[in-house]
Amino acid sequence: MKVIIGVDIGGTNTAIGVVDETGTCVRKNAVPSNTQPDAEKYGQELSQAIKKLVEQQTDAELMGIGIGAPNGNFHRGTIEHAPNLKFNGIVPLVEIVKRYFDAPVFLTNDANAAALGEKIYGGARDINDFIMITLGTGVGSGIFVNGQMLYGHDGFAGELGHTIAIPGGRQCNCGRKGCLETYCSANGLKRTVFEMLASNNADSSLRDYSYHQLTSKAIAEEAMKGDKIAQKAFAYTGKILGKQLTDFVAFSSPEAIFLFGGLVNAGDILLEPVKNHFHENLMTIFKGKVRILESEIKEGDAPIIGASALVWNEI
Amino acid sequence: MKVIIGVDIGGTNTAIGVVDETGTCVRKNAVPSNTQPDAEKYGQELSQAIKKLVEQQTDAELMGIGIGAPNGNFHRGTIEHAPNLKFNGIVPLVEIVKRYFDAPVFLTNDANAAALGEKIYGGARDINDFIMITLGTGVGSGIFVNGQMLYGHDGFAGELGHTIAIPGGRQCNCGRKGCLETYCSANGLKRTVFEMLASNNADSSLRDYSYHQLTSKAIAEEAMKGDKIAQKAFAYTGKILGKQLTDFVAFSSPEAIFLFGGLVNAGDILLEPVKNHFHENLMTIFKGKVRILESEIKEGDAPIIGASALVWNEI
Repeated sequence: MKVIIGVDIGGTNTAIGVVDETGTCVRKNAVPSNTQPDAEKYGQELSQAIKKLVEQQTDAELMGIGIGAPNGNFHRGTIEHAPNLKFNGIVPLVEIVKRYFDAPVFLTNDANAAALGEKIYGGARDINDFIMITLGTGVGSGIFVNGQMLYGHDGFAGELGHTIAIPGGRQCNCGRKGCLETYCSANGLKRTVFEMLASNNADSSLRDYSYHQLTSKAIAEEAMKGDKIAQKAFAYTGKILGKQLTDFVAFSSPEAIFLFGGLVNAGDILLEPVKNHFHENLMTIFKGKVRILESEIKEGDAPIIGASALVWNEI
Repeated sequence: MKVIIGVDIGGTNTAIGVVDETGTCVRKNAVPSNTQPDAEKYGQELSQAIKKLVEQQTDAELMGIGIGAPNGNFHRGTIEHAPNLKFNGIVPLVEIVKRYFDAPVFLTNDANAAALGEKIYGGARDINDFIMITLGTGVGSGIFVNGQMLYGHDGFAGELGHTIAIPGGRQCNCGRKGCLETYCSANGLKRTVFEMLASNNADSSLRDYSYHQLTSKAIAEEAMKGDKIAQKAFAYTGKILGKQLTDFVAFSSPEAIFLFGGLVNAGDILLEPVKNHFHENLMTIFKGKVRILESEIKEGDAPIIGASALVWNEI
């Protein structure tokens, strides 16, 4: 059986999966991301865990290893200045992992991996021009144009979470102000709730949460139960995202925009305002031509599956 | 001698030029754009003028015809809902012109033509990922990624003049508010001057101009002479443009951004604030990697030369 190893490097754990040709993750494992500041040793541990997993899968023919990582650079096979990982600076992870395998090794950032997963296994199989927006702790993106992943000159194309939504707005981790991510990520939603709790007098069950306690899931649940602040926070998030997506259309004229990640689980509370403000603000020449779609990749194994798609896309 | 016909359809005139392989326009002609609401008749007149021009050029071997037009659609060979042209709706100009010639005929919008000119004959010859921004009456753009012109799903990619610079800002001809074009075009500069004349008490020779009289050239001349309002208007224009360009980098991670068009003639009065605010506001991972450059295509024949480049790019 031909298999790909998909690797998803998160802030705490690194998930490793054996993915078959249909895009199903048939076997999984994990190593800690966070205990190893030494990139060489981390690469060794990761490679050993991969070897073990492949050995457990009888009759597996390893076609390649695909790695999704924050600030992953496809061109150079490096992780560069990733703020949430222990090893700092520029880590040549592809070079390190390649020492342990004969199969090809590729690396890209996690949102690009999600876009590749959608293209190879998901709703974008027949779509050549699309944008994937990942709405998680941050906002990431992966862009396909002319049927190709857009990496750009230096391999970092698709940082749409860091386009400016509100000039001079909220402070972003990237050092700038008003980035889309500060409004439309899970954290952005929390920030909106706290702003609204401060500026509004309305009663809300969200007043019982500390900032650290509050999650986007809790906000979604309260919104479903009818909490007005929670509902308004989603409406505001959707409005900002919907408007910003029109700028992305003016850039690459995609056929569809896929939304993926934790926030999308809130369903129509988020998607309705996104779609309304998107279609209302779209330039005339694009009206009626661009669909907003939910990702078809199931969330649990998505990062692993996306990372594995990177290999299918390249070999 | 192998030649291309480059056609530039403007609001008043349609310029036609014979362009040789070095990108030199060796012979020119023009027909009115504005007297013919009938697209069939316009296409016939245009084709006759092209035939005449080619005949005048002894030993010319016609390789193709490239047409640059507002709202030109490369995929369909059409001009669609161009607000400044007499014929409305969707005009299948390539189909019409093809009836009169054996050579291939291509059409795209004017800013894409400018980008193609830069790629084939200008400063982008060795650059695969770049963005061309045209600063004229409006703001247009043409985008190259992976060495290819970016047309997008429906052929209208690269409408960066209509990304939002100031949410809820100035009314744009496209029906929306706050588009980059309302601030950073020649008209946008005028609007800024008028705002500043209203909000400021400073004396200024620009107070002698009516809105219709005032041109970006006059504002540039007054700025050079030391007029404070004119200088502030350019500084503001450059600030908005420089910041907005950082969003474009986050999309496609280009190696360079080329600036072209009337406003660029103002030189450092505009370019300095553009570059300063660009480099200051760029995300860390892109810092030091993206150059802001002036177009190397000479302005006079640029639209004709750009349109001709479309043919070299396709054949």
